[in-house]
Amino acid sequence: MSKTDPGNYFEDFRLGQVLRHATPRTVTVGDVALYNALYGPRFALTSSDEFARACGLPGSLADPLLAFHMVFGKTVPDISLNAVANLGYAEGLFLKAIYPGDTLTATSEVIGLKENSNRKTGVVYVRTTGVNQTGEPVLRYVRWVMVRKRDEAAEIAEQATPTLAGAVAASDLVLPQGLDFSRYDFALAGAPHAFEDYAVGEKIDHVDGMAIEEAEHQMATRLYQNTAKVHFNQHERAKDPSGRRLVYGGVVISTAKALSFNGLQNAGQILAINGGRHVNPYFAGGTVFAWSEVLDKADLGPGVGALRLRLVAAKDRPCTDFPDKDDAGAYPPELILDFDYWAAVPKKKG
Amino acid sequence: MSKTDPGNYFEDFRLGQVLRHATPRTVTVGDVALYNALYGPRFALTSSDEFARACGLPGSLADPLLAFHMVFGKTVPDISLNAVANLGYAEGLFLKAIYPGDTLTATSEVIGLKENSNRKTGVVYVRTTGVNQTGEPVLRYVRWVMVRKRDEAAEIAEQATPTLAGAVAASDLVLPQGLDFSRYDFALAGAPHAFEDYAVGEKIDHVDGMAIEEAEHQMATRLYQNTAKVHFNQHERAKDPSGRRLVYGGVVISTAKALSFNGLQNAGQILAINGGRHVNPYFAGGTVFAWSEVLDKADLGPGVGALRLRLVAAKDRPCTDFPDKDDAGAYPPELILDFDYWAAVPKKKG
Amino acid sequence: MSKTDPGNYFEDFRLGQVLRHATPRTVTVGDVALYNALYGPRFALTSSDEFARACGLPGSLADPLLAFHMVFGKTVPDISLNAVANLGYAEGLFLKAIYPGDTLTATSEVIGLKENSNRKTGVVYVRTTGVNQTGEPVLRYVRWVMVRKRDEAAEIAEQATPTLAGAVAASDLVLPQGLDFSRYDFALAGAPHAFEDYAVGEKIDHVDGMAIEEAEHQMATRLYQNTAKVHFNQHERAKDPSGRRLVYGGVVISTAKALSFNGLQNAGQILAINGGRHVNPYFAGGTVFAWSEVLDKADLGPGVGALRLRLVAAKDRPCTDFPDKDDAGAYPPELILDFDYWAAVPKKKG
Repeated sequence: MSKTDPGNYFEDFRLGQVLRHATPRTVTVGDVALYNALYGPRFALTSSDEFARACGLPGSLADPLLAFHMVFGKTVPDISLNAVANLGYAEGLFLKAIYPGDTLTATSEVIGLKENSNRKTGVVYVRTTGVNQTGEPVLRYVRWVMVRKRDEAAEIAEQATPTLAGAVAASDLVLPQGLDFSRYDFALAGAPHAFEDYAVGEKIDHVDGMAIEEAEHQMATRLYQNTAKVHFNQHERAKDPSGRRLVYGGVVISTAKALSFNGLQNAGQILAINGGRHVNPYFAGGTVFAWSEVLDKADLGPGVGALRLRLVAAKDRPCTDFPDKDDAGAYPPELILDFDYWAAVPKKKG
Repeated sequence: MSKTDPGNYFEDFRLGQVLRHATPRTVTVGDVALYNALYGPRFALTSSDEFARACGLPGSLADPLLAFHMVFGKTVPDISLNAVANLGYAEGLFLKAIYPGDTLTATSEVIGLKENSNRKTGVVYVRTTGVNQTGEPVLRYVRWVMVRKRDEAAEIAEQATPTLAGAVAASDLVLPQGLDFSRYDFALAGAPHAFEDYAVGEKIDHVDGMAIEEAEHQMATRLYQNTAKVHFNQHERAKDPSGRRLVYGGVVISTAKALSFNGLQNAGQILAINGGRHVNPYFAGGTVFAWSEVLDKADLGPGVGALRLRLVAAKDRPCTDFPDKDDAGAYPPELILDFDYWAAVPKKKG
Repeated sequence: MSKTDPGNYFEDFRLGQVLRHATPRTVTVGDVALYNALYGPRFALTSSDEFARACGLPGSLADPLLAFHMVFGKTVPDISLNAVANLGYAEGLFLKAIYPGDTLTATSEVIGLKENSNRKTGVVYVRTTGVNQTGEPVLRYVRWVMVRKRDEAAEIAEQATPTLAGAVAASDLVLPQGLDFSRYDFALAGAPHAFEDYAVGEKIDHVDGMAIEEAEHQMATRLYQNTAKVHFNQHERAKDPSGRRLVYGGVVISTAKALSFNGLQNAGQILAINGGRHVNPYFAGGTVFAWSEVLDKADLGPGVGALRLRLVAAKDRPCTDFPDKDDAGAYPPELILDFDYWAAVPKKKG
């Protein structure tokens, strides 16, 4: 038997199958420093131990997206080594805050299988759960991905397409334990905008643009122990029409999220991922721009609300005029991300 | 009201105005590791916990320049988002050593305003103070920067040009608390050269050359949460005559300082910044060389002295013959930095 | 006397000479995070505190290669600043595991000197020992390097070529203190392959390919405080026929070692370096591939064995067919590393 892992092909998956992923990973302040150096986030709760403590937390939070990328990375060898495309995310929920010192492991359950009519590929839906060192789930999300078949003739026993929620219900959102915005310092965080200041339908251009270099996306993706060939193997990518290594979509998400500080200074803490699609490939060297739209608002209790936000990223295309998909739902080639999430926001002071 | 921050224009500043900057930041060993990876410093006090403890400190120091860059970064959104050029630094003084775990915040006071005769721009002088988590000032410096006016016709009420010291007085220098060079191990630090071995007027070629890549200066600058567009937005920079992203001047300072190890092995600890100018732009890919001149010496008490050093950096130009400005004070295009500072140096053993 | 260090020339070395190297260095979780970001290793013992604790260790190990690179870096200013080529390694033994917080220093003893017949260069053999903060040796290895003479006419007093072992004896291998594989979780580590599953002579293609960018090898090499000009000084390298900065060989070793996870998932822990040669130069941008061969096996007691492995790396050349030197021992230009080491591997469960 070969000891190198060929990954799973579409016909290897079974509905209800549970995959326990390899490579447990302890998050450290070193990982957090790299996250900061690679994307440039400025949200105060993840930047300052003192600020976080004033908000009832034991110290500054690791960005939930860092945990997401690390958990995602663990699933790659089992789920998407033979993937053609990562199609989307849904029902993502952050259940417990991550701090340096926490160790992450992950499992996935196959919740959907749908062979394509060409019989060469099929779509695999998995619900992945990230767990910490005490066994508590810290995040959960669904993703679906198009995977090659090893053998076109292989019969697929049982197929099903799961019904996925369009968005996580506000009542399901979980705040980091202890979070208390009563002493939130808006000026120190960078802007006075509170929950009440945002209106559904409001659009915000995040103005700034950020180029990403080959070395940067590779370092990020290695940090997450995501080994998908398309990000690293230039020798093989030279045969692709693009001739380029593809940037891991999570790098685009984290870059756009960091850019969103300019306008969403107090909405840094992601609570849920309602959906997300990488609508066009992004290659290193392009400048990433982003804009956001407020899709919904929810009151989460004393001092805190949540904004449902749509984060759209473009390459080499400033977003002053909010470039968007057309009426038929088609995305222009300069758009690269359409990401829908809930974030916690402090309310105005009593 | 737009929620994205347009930054201040020249007519927005007032003499005596105090700006409290956003984004508190906890320094970690992760930041220190990145500082090491990005510049390659070898000074023993910032490299080894054991060496630092033998010198009376609780552990290895974070480089004072790391604190400087982080504090500088906080001021960018308020001071220099609409800057044409960063003109200079003066009266920089490090008041308290920084260790991993410390949290930095910053405020600036406007101490000078001078409109240019074209009425399109003006020079803003600010005195910035970095403060730690217990409210103690850790560093203080003046910088001045040329800022655009939003409206050429705007009247500037009160103007003044501050008188700045040519150098920090040796009597104002503050050593890291506990620092005691009586057990300083010169051989382990890399060279026998002590305070007594340096002569005023002595010039030292640091020999080594170091290229800086786009990914490296971007990672450094993001780490400092410095968001100035010129460093990241390639799409916009493509319209500049250079067509290039500009490297943050602090990256040049830290690179040249790391190169200065070769000749100044025991003068790693910066105590004050007397002045500094980025005399020509530096773009990624160029190889940085540096040389130093001893401008002054000061006895700081038992076992320790200070050298006032001038650090000159060049691009793609070895410094064997100490390239310098001409008699009229004009810098040749290959020079990129003229930086004047005080550093602590151990004296010879009893 | 010039204060910049010219390094030692061949005639400066003496048999039996002991060099105490500069720049003590405390290893931190920041260094570990960079190691992960730069190479992408996935071995569980160095990835997860929890996994390491379940194996009897106090927390996740720093990769022995990280300690090796840091110790190697310290020797460069004294041994190889005037080197023409790094010729090889032998008799490398890891004596004590390294954890974040440990501080490394190094000394070298000159154990061989052999002038070349052209009288322009000679080969220096040194045995280098890395020591931790309590004075315990943590690793020891021999390397030999071709060094220029300052003066061709200089006479070399005493010469000798040391006899070096072809491999470290299995009986000399030292396991990390406390290591106990009785609770080793093969599935979590990524594969079921145990000591018993590997056969002498078995070859494994590690499949994946990894490109390394200029920024990446520079950051790695600076992190190790290795200042060899060839890695950083593009201005000088432009005069070389290649026109390129040379990548530090240790970057190739760590990259190939990380790639070896695919097939050697449970053989991550290096115990000894039997030998190693950088058989061709590697420049940034090339895609690194690797394959391994099992050279020997040794029983190390209850639950644990050691594999002697040969790790061969190639550039821009997949290793499906195990590219190798020819019968005359000549390496094709696409091969860049031939590295021989012992690694610990858990045995099958009772």
